[in-house]
Amino acid sequence: MSSSYGENIRLTIFGQSHSPAIGMTMEGIPAGQRIDRELLQRFLDRRAPGRAVYSTPRREADEPEFLSGLVGNVTCGAPIAAIIRNTNIRREDYAAFASLPRPGHADYTAQMKYGGAQDRSGGGHFSGRMTAPLCIAGGICLQMLAAEKIQVISRILSIGKVHDVGDLTESTAQKRFPTVDDACGEAMCAEIEDARAQGDSIGGVIECAVLGLPAGLGDPIFDGMENRIASAIFAIPAVKGIEFGSGFASAALHGSENNDPYFVEDGRVKTLTNHCGGILGGITNGMPLTFRVAVKPTPSIAKEQRSVNLKTMEPERLAITGRHDPCIVPRAVPCVEAAAAIAVYDALLGHKREEE
Amino acid sequence: MSSSYGENIRLTIFGQSHSPAIGMTMEGIPAGQRIDRELLQRFLDRRAPGRAVYSTPRREADEPEFLSGLVGNVTCGAPIAAIIRNTNIRREDYAAFASLPRPGHADYTAQMKYGGAQDRSGGGHFSGRMTAPLCIAGGICLQMLAAEKIQVISRILSIGKVHDVGDLTESTAQKRFPTVDDACGEAMCAEIEDARAQGDSIGGVIECAVLGLPAGLGDPIFDGMENRIASAIFAIPAVKGIEFGSGFASAALHGSENNDPYFVEDGRVKTLTNHCGGILGGITNGMPLTFRVAVKPTPSIAKEQRSVNLKTMEPERLAITGRHDPCIVPRAVPCVEAAAAIAVYDALLGHKREEE
Amino acid sequence: MSSSYGENIRLTIFGQSHSPAIGMTMEGIPAGQRIDRELLQRFLDRRAPGRAVYSTPRREADEPEFLSGLVGNVTCGAPIAAIIRNTNIRREDYAAFASLPRPGHADYTAQMKYGGAQDRSGGGHFSGRMTAPLCIAGGICLQMLAAEKIQVISRILSIGKVHDVGDLTESTAQKRFPTVDDACGEAMCAEIEDARAQGDSIGGVIECAVLGLPAGLGDPIFDGMENRIASAIFAIPAVKGIEFGSGFASAALHGSENNDPYFVEDGRVKTLTNHCGGILGGITNGMPLTFRVAVKPTPSIAKEQRSVNLKTMEPERLAITGRHDPCIVPRAVPCVEAAAAIAVYDALLGHKREEE
Amino acid sequence: MSSSYGENIRLTIFGQSHSPAIGMTMEGIPAGQRIDRELLQRFLDRRAPGRAVYSTPRREADEPEFLSGLVGNVTCGAPIAAIIRNTNIRREDYAAFASLPRPGHADYTAQMKYGGAQDRSGGGHFSGRMTAPLCIAGGICLQMLAAEKIQVISRILSIGKVHDVGDLTESTAQKRFPTVDDACGEAMCAEIEDARAQGDSIGGVIECAVLGLPAGLGDPIFDGMENRIASAIFAIPAVKGIEFGSGFASAALHGSENNDPYFVEDGRVKTLTNHCGGILGGITNGMPLTFRVAVKPTPSIAKEQRSVNLKTMEPERLAITGRHDPCIVPRAVPCVEAAAAIAVYDALLGHKREEE
Repeated sequence: MSSSYGENIRLTIFGQSHSPAIGMTMEGIPAGQRIDRELLQRFLDRRAPGRAVYSTPRREADEPEFLSGLVGNVTCGAPIAAIIRNTNIRREDYAAFASLPRPGHADYTAQMKYGGAQDRSGGGHFSGRMTAPLCIAGGICLQMLAAEKIQVISRILSIGKVHDVGDLTESTAQKRFPTVDDACGEAMCAEIEDARAQGDSIGGVIECAVLGLPAGLGDPIFDGMENRIASAIFAIPAVKGIEFGSGFASAALHGSENNDPYFVEDGRVKTLTNHCGGILGGITNGMPLTFRVAVKPTPSIAKEQRSVNLKTMEPERLAITGRHDPCIVPRAVPCVEAAAAIAVYDALLGHKREEE
Repeated sequence: MSSSYGENIRLTIFGQSHSPAIGMTMEGIPAGQRIDRELLQRFLDRRAPGRAVYSTPRREADEPEFLSGLVGNVTCGAPIAAIIRNTNIRREDYAAFASLPRPGHADYTAQMKYGGAQDRSGGGHFSGRMTAPLCIAGGICLQMLAAEKIQVISRILSIGKVHDVGDLTESTAQKRFPTVDDACGEAMCAEIEDARAQGDSIGGVIECAVLGLPAGLGDPIFDGMENRIASAIFAIPAVKGIEFGSGFASAALHGSENNDPYFVEDGRVKTLTNHCGGILGGITNGMPLTFRVAVKPTPSIAKEQRSVNLKTMEPERLAITGRHDPCIVPRAVPCVEAAAAIAVYDALLGHKREEE
Repeated sequence: MSSSYGENIRLTIFGQSHSPAIGMTMEGIPAGQRIDRELLQRFLDRRAPGRAVYSTPRREADEPEFLSGLVGNVTCGAPIAAIIRNTNIRREDYAAFASLPRPGHADYTAQMKYGGAQDRSGGGHFSGRMTAPLCIAGGICLQMLAAEKIQVISRILSIGKVHDVGDLTESTAQKRFPTVDDACGEAMCAEIEDARAQGDSIGGVIECAVLGLPAGLGDPIFDGMENRIASAIFAIPAVKGIEFGSGFASAALHGSENNDPYFVEDGRVKTLTNHCGGILGGITNGMPLTFRVAVKPTPSIAKEQRSVNLKTMEPERLAITGRHDPCIVPRAVPCVEAAAAIAVYDALLGHKREEE
Repeated sequence: MSSSYGENIRLTIFGQSHSPAIGMTMEGIPAGQRIDRELLQRFLDRRAPGRAVYSTPRREADEPEFLSGLVGNVTCGAPIAAIIRNTNIRREDYAAFASLPRPGHADYTAQMKYGGAQDRSGGGHFSGRMTAPLCIAGGICLQMLAAEKIQVISRILSIGKVHDVGDLTESTAQKRFPTVDDACGEAMCAEIEDARAQGDSIGGVIECAVLGLPAGLGDPIFDGMENRIASAIFAIPAVKGIEFGSGFASAALHGSENNDPYFVEDGRVKTLTNHCGGILGGITNGMPLTFRVAVKPTPSIAKEQRSVNLKTMEPERLAITGRHDPCIVPRAVPCVEAAAAIAVYDALLGHKREEE
């Protein structure tokens, strides 16, 4: 195990790329909460494939069917279950990889873990497609958070070596290609297009902020906000790093530079800087909770690569011909928001219990 | 919650900086395992204060008393409980901070979470001292891993802006100040001494590798090795970032650069490079599992800082006069190894169940 | 929460009586296990309604659709998800109970818990229909256990005041109406028919045994076999008591009568009697694990009952006219086996890890 | 595993009969709660040995030392840890049982589980002595519940074949030997004394009620109040059965007899009878939550018993000569209250979160 997450909510993600359906169950959302299905669909559409130059042409609607947990569109207290049918299945695409593991993919590790019984088609349970149910769960949590005036926003901080400039704001997050500086955004798109043209792929960094959090959220030691968010974010395939506040840059600073001085504004305690990313001792201080996520380049590339035939144990070369994004960073943005929303809302439910 | 961790082991860390004792309970270590108490003590000594120029003069032996779970030095299957008495307590040091939160510390966030009932002395449950029981648990797990020929090694990659060069090896990890290049190590020590002389502190980065892991360890989605290790590592106060393999650097690469090609050596499948840090799809591939951890500068500094008096809500300045490390990175090294060992051993126990 | 169970498997049951579907997700079944779908269907048919005089005429096929976790009929290591569509829905049946809680049902308690947002139709998530996904999960676990030569068998020990005689054996368990003595079984059926004729219902006791268990299964204190099985069995609506071995009868005995003396047979340690039900200190001793479960009479009866109108807070009378079993004991038999199989298999997976 | 319990609190019990100490850690008690140490000690004294004719002469004070989680006597939000030193240790008493398992004890099953590495002295982790830390945790939960006007009361319903008469009330629960009818109590004591005189032991039944609970407490399916309480109660060694409300007697009733009709009193919905024991669908209805627990006779008896020498696999006889209660039912009464309080308080914390 495990494809399950949460302390106060309990989320299970199921499905394989080419199984009859993918989906999620989520317990713990309080009864009586209205879910805006259109808003949820718009959120899911941000992740769905086939929308842009940088995205795979495989296009599925990603429209969830809710099987339980709702009466009309209102939660009834029972576990919420929702599924998305897999309709556009081409099992033959992947037959070759059964014994020839694709570099950078989970083909080989899944083979070692499951002794050959894993579902190889399309990456099986390791497919990026499993982020669709993550986004269903996260989209619901985002709505729960919004009802408490908590926003989760994000931007693309870099694609390859092209970096955005300026500070993340709510208006940035609403752009179709979310960068503060549109010229940077265009340069990033060019970088992606360039990778595609070369039969290659490219990685990037996503920055995320949670606004409107109360101070006092999170727990000591193993359940701090960093632990909780990291634990959820690494559920997104291709994520290889996370840093909070100034993160790795803090490691090069002196304490006198990195400590965030307190001051009072509008009767509230705030900090002048936010190197700590809104978290001290694992617990929120009421400032924006900020973090950055490193996304590796899509491992599926048309360029020829070296691998090993697991049957013969002889070297072999492979070129991946299927439908693949040259850069998954844009589609990973809502996934990061979803994972953050799940982690934060789970912590918030615990916080409410304590506040009583 | 929560000060608990684990799926197959269950670790709870308890205690406050100035409570009668600190300690840990750990369930799930198989019965019949011999614990080498001397080896454990030497491991704990690496974390203990008062050993070097860069360390606080507060010195306590950190000798655990085992209360249960052992017959002689052999595990009996019952939960292991061990405590360390707090002997060198000076409650008066911290009285002033009750209403004047120290920047960069958990004073303010704990106040907001616990409504003023938290134990303020010495940081209470948020004290760096809580890493001593983490190291007891981790030290035991390191011994369990060693019995399976799995090693956890680490080095100091940077202090402030001074970086080590070369590749981490087992011999590096055994040095008193673990850097590959001793000249770099000396420059780092000078950097620390310089921070101390200025009444300041400084951060750094630790690199860690787990050697000898089988392929197939870890689980999809929320229980991948990245999720598991991150979740444990962020239990160490002052950690603000983690990256696996090439981490954030991967985000700037093309897929053709970042994918690790497979080859065969000595009948085993290996990869030519290790950008993925030994983890694909959350699951180990049998290569070294590598990660880096960003440690922020110690927030306790002698330099005067801005804060807010929470009673009057007026700005106030404070200078911290107690005993504090100018740089906790060297003492954090065994903590990182301990947290990694706990996460890896927990996953290994699950792996064994599957292998049956 | 929670509709989730398990330490080494993780089972979530979702759905409401009249939601689009009911179902379950189950993680932790090892990869590579073949599931016999026909055998599973025959097991589910034992629970399904509409089969006998004692059963409600509402008839649904209870044929699960597997959405994930299988390749063909073999587990692939990913979570198994299966659903059963709700086809025979008559929401109007239950409209009246919105403000007039049925005695013995969860109408009132769900109203108090969910503040009126619960799904009232057909008992919602509290419906006996939720035992169908429990039986999917349990049916799979029964097959996993059978592969290890572990059998779960049961009989109807009593209906109302009519008791079976003799000892439970495997052949008894295969009967359509599982009693040792067929005359007793006929008398029980008459008792059920009599209850129906009076517009009433009747309860009973089920006896269950798990055969072929290794000694050493289970854990101390909170995870003994009694805790584990009780925790799963009380998931079946209408269960109000459980006893292991001689149970409540043991309380009237002397130690010299109740202690089970050891002897050796065929080189194995056994006990002459089995008052302890195969469990000592929470851990199996290798003898049959036996327990009995008290099932209350179906609360839905045609006879007029006293209730309270929650809107007016005035007394009101109600008579339940829908389709209801006069006795759910026969259909509860496979549910008891399912819950026991889930608990035992979950413990067995933990046991395998230890055995390594 | 596992010696841990809880969803909103997390309790771990550690120690062996003859390890340096026994104890518990408990997370999740809200910060700022005052613990009355004297009241707690009086509660622990009810369980402690050596108090009466029916109790073993081994007498230890059972005075807990609190190691963490408190500032003064007020909870600070960090995990509470408390230990009791084992002072009166006689390891030689038990040496003989290493290869000659005592009937009715966990000697044999622990041997099978731990492969001989278990702590055999005094029953090790399976000792009844482990109920002392259970009572520390439970005693704290009882105080938390009392602050919300929730009482846990109990009585001895039977010893051997002697039954109490009348209904359990708060005044009964305060008696030294808690029976409604004092003559019954005297007859029970005579029954115990008689068992002792014969070198034998005797079992009994404890009845417990939780008064003052809100309606709406508990959760569907696997986390109903029955599941939660059963799961905690079976942590008490010697418990072999539990029934809620009318329990097994309900199984002999018709629905028209067993359903509890609703009525209104003082503006509150109540039921005329309480066959359901205050629980419907796993959730409280606001009536007293009632249950009964079957306690087997103490397995340690002076009378000669049959066993098997595990080294020679030859039959052998043994007579247990140590210090043992002829009946543990009276000392089990506070243990039942403790386990119930832990389960109920854990559920109550979840309930508070939902109420927000």
